[in-house]
Amino acid sequence: MIYELYYWPGIQGRGEFVRLVLEEAGAQYVDVALLPEEQGGGVSAMMKLLDDPALAHPPFAPPFLKAGRRLIAQTANILLFLGARLSLAPRDAAGRLWTHQLQLTLADFVNEIHDTHHPIGGGLYYQQQKAEAKRRSRDFLDYRLPKFLGYFERVIERNPDGDRWMVGKRLSYVDLSAAQVVAGLRYAFPLASRKALRPCPRLRALHDAVFARPRVKRYVRSGRRLAFNNDGIFRRYPELDA
Amino acid sequence: MIYELYYWPGIQGRGEFVRLVLEEAGAQYVDVALLPEEQGGGVSAMMKLLDDPALAHPPFAPPFLKAGRRLIAQTANILLFLGARLSLAPRDAAGRLWTHQLQLTLADFVNEIHDTHHPIGGGLYYQQQKAEAKRRSRDFLDYRLPKFLGYFERVIERNPDGDRWMVGKRLSYVDLSAAQVVAGLRYAFPLASRKALRPCPRLRALHDAVFARPRVKRYVRSGRRLAFNNDGIFRRYPELDA
Repeated sequence: MIYELYYWPGIQGRGEFVRLVLEEAGAQYVDVALLPEEQGGGVSAMMKLLDDPALAHPPFAPPFLKAGRRLIAQTANILLFLGARLSLAPRDAAGRLWTHQLQLTLADFVNEIHDTHHPIGGGLYYQQQKAEAKRRSRDFLDYRLPKFLGYFERVIERNPDGDRWMVGKRLSYVDLSAAQVVAGLRYAFPLASRKALRPCPRLRALHDAVFARPRVKRYVRSGRRLAFNNDGIFRRYPELDA
Repeated sequence: MIYELYYWPGIQGRGEFVRLVLEEAGAQYVDVALLPEEQGGGVSAMMKLLDDPALAHPPFAPPFLKAGRRLIAQTANILLFLGARLSLAPRDAAGRLWTHQLQLTLADFVNEIHDTHHPIGGGLYYQQQKAEAKRRSRDFLDYRLPKFLGYFERVIERNPDGDRWMVGKRLSYVDLSAAQVVAGLRYAFPLASRKALRPCPRLRALHDAVFARPRVKRYVRSGRRLAFNNDGIFRRYPELDA
């Protein structure tokens, strides 16, 4: 099975959570929108599929994944699907639901991180909402950031199978996503995240363990992993950091 | 099985999506935080469970559901679990994933609806972010509201089993949630939602069909369904409607 991932070029964005799972599993996949248009790629290929009037199950937005005849959207839903197929989730139904619950909580966290620089609207530029972004970031850094990080630290700490991963004895897709969020926070808010991560030794260790995985390392070194930049979810605007 | 639902008293909020599923299925449940403290209810019972240091799988926030020994949080995750058990979801794995994908898209929609009145922070009062709320609502009503509603209208229209429900031939949990969102939008934005729903006849019909279901009707008439009010997700601030 060669998976086809569709996501905006130029940013890690939500597509990166899917990429990390595919990379860690050593799955074969094509990052369609990153291919040249002559090879059937580019944004136009993605939009053509997104807007195809013959689709019975249209996605609302990227990322979406083609797996054979199936087309699956919503990041957490894609990971729910892939986690089971690629052995990156517990085998039992209760464990899968718990893993997914954590992923949905991470998705809420990611939405709030995004909205620090876009509190008024995703269709407006940052410059058009800079004053509001400052207020929102202040609130986020003071209250939400420590609350979310403290929660995930607690989840690792309470894992009955040891305080290395979020769920069970082995790495699961939610660990990959959590490590990516930590990396993104360090990019976006170097000062605030350093402080907020201080009481979270397990989460820091989980981040390091994920980025030390041989396949993840190979992916990062391959040059295929895009760098964080100020078009994505995690953006570094020094005036928002404190 | 008697389910135990935990959610903030005084508002419909995200708990209402769970209630509608339990009510439509005729399931037995206790709305724990609505019970008097003397009967082991109230917010204190909810917080005691939420903060219980012995919980291996702590929820991040309400709503959460106790089903026997399982404790499940995240609204969409609770519905994924209940939908399968209460026959309010397709039986096949692909159909369940598609239904869940729609529910996650509704969850994104609900987050954006909430943020129209709280663009800066959930911990601040509306009065402290009224100017920002006006700007965000403008953007939401101009771009996001028609985009989301148009999407769900299209999903019903393209349902290969007929354009009555979102998924398959029968009602599923995502129909209950979609109807609740339509009801909430009409409460919060009577002018804008009237206009935005005009080109969505199938979504309006779905709303009516859901609220005409005998069990849903009985629930609404019982007085147990709280009224919409300005403490919940859907709030009526006339200055935000247009």
